[in-house]
Amino acid sequence: MNQQAPPSSDAAFLADFHFVATIGATDNNGVDRQALTAEDKQARDWMRGWATDKGFDVRVDAIGNMFACLEFVPDAPYVLVGSHLDSQPLGGRFDGAYGVIAALFAALRVKEELAESGLKPTFNLAVVNWFNEEGGRFAPSIMGSSVYAGLFDLDEMLAVADLEGTTVAEALGAIGYAGTDTPPEAITYAEIHIEQGRILEREATDIGVVESSWYTQKLDIDVLGEQSHTGATAMADRHDAVVAAAKVVLAVAEVVSEFDDEALVSSVGQHVVEPNSPIVVPRRVHMVADLRSSDPAIVQAARSSLKTQIAEIARAHDITINVEDFDIRDKRHFPNEGVELAEKAVANEGLSIRRLETMAGHDSVAMNHRVPAVMMFVPSVDGVSHCEREFTTDDDMLRGVRVLTSVARELVRGELADVRDGAVWVGSSVAEVRA
Amino acid sequence: MNQQAPPSSDAAFLADFHFVATIGATDNNGVDRQALTAEDKQARDWMRGWATDKGFDVRVDAIGNMFACLEFVPDAPYVLVGSHLDSQPLGGRFDGAYGVIAALFAALRVKEELAESGLKPTFNLAVVNWFNEEGGRFAPSIMGSSVYAGLFDLDEMLAVADLEGTTVAEALGAIGYAGTDTPPEAITYAEIHIEQGRILEREATDIGVVESSWYTQKLDIDVLGEQSHTGATAMADRHDAVVAAAKVVLAVAEVVSEFDDEALVSSVGQHVVEPNSPIVVPRRVHMVADLRSSDPAIVQAARSSLKTQIAEIARAHDITINVEDFDIRDKRHFPNEGVELAEKAVANEGLSIRRLETMAGHDSVAMNHRVPAVMMFVPSVDGVSHCEREFTTDDDMLRGVRVLTSVARELVRGELADVRDGAVWVGSSVAEVRA
Repeated sequence: MNQQAPPSSDAAFLADFHFVATIGATDNNGVDRQALTAEDKQARDWMRGWATDKGFDVRVDAIGNMFACLEFVPDAPYVLVGSHLDSQPLGGRFDGAYGVIAALFAALRVKEELAESGLKPTFNLAVVNWFNEEGGRFAPSIMGSSVYAGLFDLDEMLAVADLEGTTVAEALGAIGYAGTDTPPEAITYAEIHIEQGRILEREATDIGVVESSWYTQKLDIDVLGEQSHTGATAMADRHDAVVAAAKVVLAVAEVVSEFDDEALVSSVGQHVVEPNSPIVVPRRVHMVADLRSSDPAIVQAARSSLKTQIAEIARAHDITINVEDFDIRDKRHFPNEGVELAEKAVANEGLSIRRLETMAGHDSVAMNHRVPAVMMFVPSVDGVSHCEREFTTDDDMLRGVRVLTSVARELVRGELADVRDGAVWVGSSVAEVRA
Repeated sequence: MNQQAPPSSDAAFLADFHFVATIGATDNNGVDRQALTAEDKQARDWMRGWATDKGFDVRVDAIGNMFACLEFVPDAPYVLVGSHLDSQPLGGRFDGAYGVIAALFAALRVKEELAESGLKPTFNLAVVNWFNEEGGRFAPSIMGSSVYAGLFDLDEMLAVADLEGTTVAEALGAIGYAGTDTPPEAITYAEIHIEQGRILEREATDIGVVESSWYTQKLDIDVLGEQSHTGATAMADRHDAVVAAAKVVLAVAEVVSEFDDEALVSSVGQHVVEPNSPIVVPRRVHMVADLRSSDPAIVQAARSSLKTQIAEIARAHDITINVEDFDIRDKRHFPNEGVELAEKAVANEGLSIRRLETMAGHDSVAMNHRVPAVMMFVPSVDGVSHCEREFTTDDDMLRGVRVLTSVARELVRGELADVRDGAVWVGSSVAEVRA
């Protein structure tokens, strides 16, 4: 079973990975390749060219997901492997892109092995580049895979606008990726990604396999004060949105102290001041808070504490603060059979593995709503991500490609497909299925 | 002396004022006519057309100030009267525009009187629309008059960029107001403006005359954290710029409590978060704080307290916060002779007047560096400004036009010019001159 990819393929993987990292490259070794920008188009064009050259059939669906398909068995469903090529603004070069390029090389290797052996697998294989995993430009994140998985409505997502007012539909059209192809029908899904945390590095472990994802939700918070003159308006006459907003930001940061250390993470990533003129007391601050925990009850308790505190802030400042829940994502368990499949693949490669949770959302979490999914991690140096100094070594990346190849090989042979219970799986959590 | 403008001119003033308020009109009775936008161009074109029709000679200088000139005495210097046609984003329709349109009608009336009487004045007269008083789009504010007064460097100001990266020079060219005319040489200056405070309304007084302006300064505050993932990054590993920034915003708001009530006003009007993505812990917040007091020592004490507190916040969050002083504006005294001139004009019109200070900056404050200036206010309902519900009654506006006409009449006859000591006046404060 221990079929090593030849070294020439390692060199080719590294060359291609580091080439793609030049698309949208920033001054400090990061990339800025937000969804549907000119840079995203360049990365997409690269994938299309690479896959077409190697005999894949490339399809683009209506939300801009790209599928590089290998049909081994006419009319059979597809094993999907992939991740996303888009990045955060001034993001890292590994987050997402590693998983897509690893999947391309894994799929190519599986195709070559099948050609060499003459064996016929059970399923077909496709590499996917999901649209807008990052959600930096168009919210919510994990958009393309969620539409594919039936969690988000296609038309609603096509109408989402960025801060400039450009919609997803317009932006897809502008870069020529408003697809019309029917996407391949998935039977199972696998993804490899950087950990974005410190556990694997700290424990010197090669591969992580994800057992479950954290419960997450966002709060849309709209602080509505009154615009006035920074010079001419008496302090007592003001209803300053940015001062009330500062108290909300601190409440969001400090709510974590109501729970055990690191049991909850919270943040305000988006915070827009209007009218944002140096000599105008702001009338409005619109912000998004993000709450995440392994335990749904903790997120719900934090949300409830924040709603009380925010109402208090609004009263004290005599202004209006509207708070809306959105983008609630249940804690999801990945199927145990997939975890064991990854463990077996890692053992066959002579590598080390541990089980863990993911605090971050991933396309695999969305896909795990629809079909059984396997999610694996490679180590992140210092655990940092969504920034330019995000880093993973070449050796760690190559180990991941070997493991992903092994998992893809098993999936096309039919592994994990029997876990599937279509009627129950779609739209419900594995936890419910197993309860 | 009590020369009433005929009622037909009152109707014409009101018609023109309310017409200009339709340029860039917002849904709630305000205007959005930021410097060098399409709306600003429309207001400028209106002024050019109006003044040319009435026999004024319109000149535009290199920073885009517009002068509508009436030459009575060849080669004599000019009395300038005016204000600004630009507004804040979602600003009011009175701030600035009232003073320009009042000045046009005052100048026209003076011209008609001189034609009727056949008398020859001492000086010429020009109405000015100063470029970018508001500073909402291009900082600093009071830009055009400060360049004219020699306080700001022309080339430096032409290179100032807005948040989109468009420079003043580019924006002037884009709307066709990159002028090449030599501006008229001023001998004295007068301006009328809405109060933007509650004093005149509370005391039922028709006109305010400004004795001095507040000492003001801004702080450019750059909070430099580290970008990371809102989900995957442990709270302990974060250097969250928006949380540290929230503490700075509160420090700026609360520093006023170290002084007597309303002795100091402080605010943060501009606050920009990077990268501003819902799922990225912000790396940077760039903000502008504004400190104002009648007493320079209070602003200096507040600044010093804030610098200490901000250093403490930076230490506590293990991030960098850079603080730079900018746009420091000395407390300025307007010449007493000008105050008395306004009081005499008001008495002649049978109206009431009181002396006051201005908390807000004005073009007259910049001009008072260069030539003796008179600054007058009409009442503001509820004292609000820089917002859509800014309001002044038609009757109050008309009273102001009568008083401004009377002041302009005296200025062209030579009043106030003898206060001038060119060598000392230019670039130094009246306080220094009188000390």
